[in-house]
Amino acid sequence: MKRAVYVRAEDRPGLLRDLSDAITSLGGNIEFSIARKRENEGHFLFIFEVESEKSNEEIERIISELKEVKEVTVEEFPSSEVFSDYLKEHKTIASEISKYVHPSDFLDALTRMDEESRREVYHHIPQSYMANLLHISPKEIVEEASSEIGPRTLSRVLGRMDPDEVADVVQKLPSEIVREVYKHMEKESLEKVRGLLRYPPDSAGGIMTSSFPALREDVRVRDALRTLSLGKFEVSDVLFVVDEEGKLLGYLKVLDLLREDPESNLGRICKKDLVTVNPEEDREEVAKLMVKYDISRLPVVDEEGRLLGVVTIEDVADVIVAEHGEDYLLLGGLPKMEDYRYLTARPTSLFRKRFLWLLAIYLVESVTARIIKGFGVMISETAIIAAFIPLILATGGNVGSQASTLVVRALALGEVTPRDYLRIVLKELSTSILISPAIASVGFVFAYTISLDLRISLIVSLALGLVTITADITGALLPLLATIFKVDPATISSPLIATISDVSGLVVYLTLASLLLGVV
Amino acid sequence: MKRAVYVRAEDRPGLLRDLSDAITSLGGNIEFSIARKRENEGHFLFIFEVESEKSNEEIERIISELKEVKEVTVEEFPSSEVFSDYLKEHKTIASEISKYVHPSDFLDALTRMDEESRREVYHHIPQSYMANLLHISPKEIVEEASSEIGPRTLSRVLGRMDPDEVADVVQKLPSEIVREVYKHMEKESLEKVRGLLRYPPDSAGGIMTSSFPALREDVRVRDALRTLSLGKFEVSDVLFVVDEEGKLLGYLKVLDLLREDPESNLGRICKKDLVTVNPEEDREEVAKLMVKYDISRLPVVDEEGRLLGVVTIEDVADVIVAEHGEDYLLLGGLPKMEDYRYLTARPTSLFRKRFLWLLAIYLVESVTARIIKGFGVMISETAIIAAFIPLILATGGNVGSQASTLVVRALALGEVTPRDYLRIVLKELSTSILISPAIASVGFVFAYTISLDLRISLIVSLALGLVTITADITGALLPLLATIFKVDPATISSPLIATISDVSGLVVYLTLASLLLGVV
Ligand SMILES: [Mg+2]
Ligand SMILES: [Mg+2]
Ligand SMILES: [Mg+2]
Repeated sequence: MKRAVYVRAEDRPGLLRDLSDAITSLGGNIEFSIARKRENEGHFLFIFEVESEKSNEEIERIISELKEVKEVTVEEFPSSEVFSDYLKEHKTIASEISKYVHPSDFLDALTRMDEESRREVYHHIPQSYMANLLHISPKEIVEEASSEIGPRTLSRVLGRMDPDEVADVVQKLPSEIVREVYKHMEKESLEKVRGLLRYPPDSAGGIMTSSFPALREDVRVRDALRTLSLGKFEVSDVLFVVDEEGKLLGYLKVLDLLREDPESNLGRICKKDLVTVNPEEDREEVAKLMVKYDISRLPVVDEEGRLLGVVTIEDVADVIVAEHGEDYLLLGGLPKMEDYRYLTARPTSLFRKRFLWLLAIYLVESVTARIIKGFGVMISETAIIAAFIPLILATGGNVGSQASTLVVRALALGEVTPRDYLRIVLKELSTSILISPAIASVGFVFAYTISLDLRISLIVSLALGLVTITADITGALLPLLATIFKVDPATISSPLIATISDVSGLVVYLTLASLLLGVV
Repeated sequence: MKRAVYVRAEDRPGLLRDLSDAITSLGGNIEFSIARKRENEGHFLFIFEVESEKSNEEIERIISELKEVKEVTVEEFPSSEVFSDYLKEHKTIASEISKYVHPSDFLDALTRMDEESRREVYHHIPQSYMANLLHISPKEIVEEASSEIGPRTLSRVLGRMDPDEVADVVQKLPSEIVREVYKHMEKESLEKVRGLLRYPPDSAGGIMTSSFPALREDVRVRDALRTLSLGKFEVSDVLFVVDEEGKLLGYLKVLDLLREDPESNLGRICKKDLVTVNPEEDREEVAKLMVKYDISRLPVVDEEGRLLGVVTIEDVADVIVAEHGEDYLLLGGLPKMEDYRYLTARPTSLFRKRFLWLLAIYLVESVTARIIKGFGVMISETAIIAAFIPLILATGGNVGSQASTLVVRALALGEVTPRDYLRIVLKELSTSILISPAIASVGFVFAYTISLDLRISLIVSLALGLVTITADITGALLPLLATIFKVDPATISSPLIATISDVSGLVVYLTLASLLLGVV
């Protein structure tokens, strides 16, 4: 297992040797090391392979026992913590680290640093590495880095990217910088980028690549192989065949090309069972389509059938991760926060995003106070009624959240549509009719141990039984309603379900109580 | 746009012609149609392309106005509803439909049918199609279908699959059927399947394919190209290079092979910057690795470095979808329910899965009843105190669920680790210190409009402010604790957070109330 170690120590002669010795005696094989001195302190970074199963803590202890060592961090490689510790001390080391560390890991290290240090680091990142880094960075980092390095360097960095990567980055830049950058760009690539920018980032056009081989139908296999061997494409396993107007005719796997007669025309031998999408198609639908039908390369065509680009399964994997992240936030009661990072997001912006939603749900939930106030007399007389309110409401919320989860997922997988509402209601009825008496019985026994009152226990038990069924059906129907009103059912979060079932649960419970306390 | 239409009608001469006329006059271009008669009823299925933007409802109305038509369903193609409607009437049509419909869509249609009809349909599915269907089917369908077609046919069906697909299917079969099937299988493929079955389905070994080109280091480019052009592999864009013991040395993109001197040895020209995994590695970690570092083909090697298989990004996309589905269920308060389908899952099995979790969370939540009972005297005297309980508890739950969502996601993306607990607490403190006074102020005003009592309003407002901060910190720390105790942080569901913050919120609110009602 590979480890990364950061050491800070009072400088003394032989320290580097002692550190190397310590690591070697641990069975470590040093692959990379940096040592820098400032004033009287030495800063060391080692990356090494250890065969034995030494824990990070053990290694940390052994190194920290060396004379003059002040601070040790040991982590598994790649380690964003160790790199950020070192970068904070020596920003210039960025260029050396970049030779050894994947841009994804470098980005992780960056987001662990304070803004000021980050801004210094940008000046020491080589241009080709910056290109790979910017392409995967969130908006905040892209903005910071570009304002630091300036439009001239930035346009040189962008010059090292594929047009679709440039388009992704440009979308994260403020428009005044974009204008500056465009001035420095070559005309041909500028046109390609602008072509891609015509489509929103969450559409097929926004995620497609324009780096793929496309050849005319009258090209022979022999020449196609030669062209392929000379080019450099993001899509390198499939060749698309087009007519003279650029209309897509078919495709050929490169491997299959090897089997063909070198003199054949591509148009005659290409496969024509094409699935295509429009550039405007939602990227989530594109992802679903490709996963469902196991498509690796999906051509994007315009209304005339002209080939505009190709969506790759590699990009779709990123899309799926991003879309699930969005849905996950929605579920937890947070708005869409595209490509933010927890560590770099500002508290004020988090506040703004969280508070509005909390306020909205607070206003709905506040109905519960009015309902309870309405039963104030009963509660003063029989205070024990109040004791079961949170329990009954929570149970309703949990049942509702289970039901809505099941339905949202079935909708997302295309297993059901809103037209199936009857099947869904029946399914939920049959399940909740099993759950309801079970919960009611447990509730009865429990309520009796608390209240020692059969009447109260009966009321609590009945309320639990009823609430279970109503909350289940409500939870199942809400996502269907959302779909009908063209709202993403993923917005039906557990807190929303809980709020709605709080209100209906209270009405059921307190009405039951006021009826039965009079009668029983 | 392509539509599918199902029509049921009293049989009469010229009906098929009238239906075809109606579709043609709608501008439809019929691609596929089936007509079957039973007793006095005719059943028709049409698939056609319409240029105009006619809605399904319009088409439905126009067709249903034809004489003797009893039932019309119009849907966009592929339409699981139309197919299942037709299959229910004429099971033998399965073989015809299979020529036109993707197995994924056929499966969707199957899950919409009752078990009895499904069991009949299995007998009419061609073997090669059954192979594609079984590979993507959930356990219930695999079991049903195999018990219907019997082990002899089943082993013939399995003979048409890749070994890794067979392994997937075998894992869904009862062991007595597996034994039968093994008897009928060829020795060589049986060994391959058994090799793959050594690894659990959620490991790298469980998702890898064994269908990829691997050639020895001393093979020349010329011969490699010939071998590639003769074989048929799932991985067809990369060639792996191994030594005589099968140890992985490097890889070559097939496209790059075209550029090389035909006389070169593969060992000399192959790329050696290999990232590999062990077969035991968790499939979720494999997926993260491949997405993070943009890897399309990840070789799986044993301890000696021998190449065992390859994980493809196509399979990883499926894994990501499956893992997110699991996490989604967990979040909604449901246990892991691997590869179930909502429509075919039995209410009793849903009951078992849902009830245990509900019961567990009920028992925790029941503490709230004891707490409130403890403050019974205060509540009989000042019943309005009870009115604000759900509101305060819900707000705590919502804030906590937001905070935990942010942290779970940051953990999942590797942005933070439990070692960052201090940063996280600081971040949450700084956000919740902004949210707390905002919520408290809103709460004060609102509580006054309900209670018309400054004391009560002050208590409610203070409680809201405090609960906001404690719930936020608790919500943020729970996923960290989960990670430390090696529990998947995704199990920290919103309902769980809500339950925990219900208990702490009640203690805060009622204690505050009993203190301040005495003092203020
Ligand atoms: Mg793009
Ligand atoms: Mg979405
Ligand atoms: Mg998981």
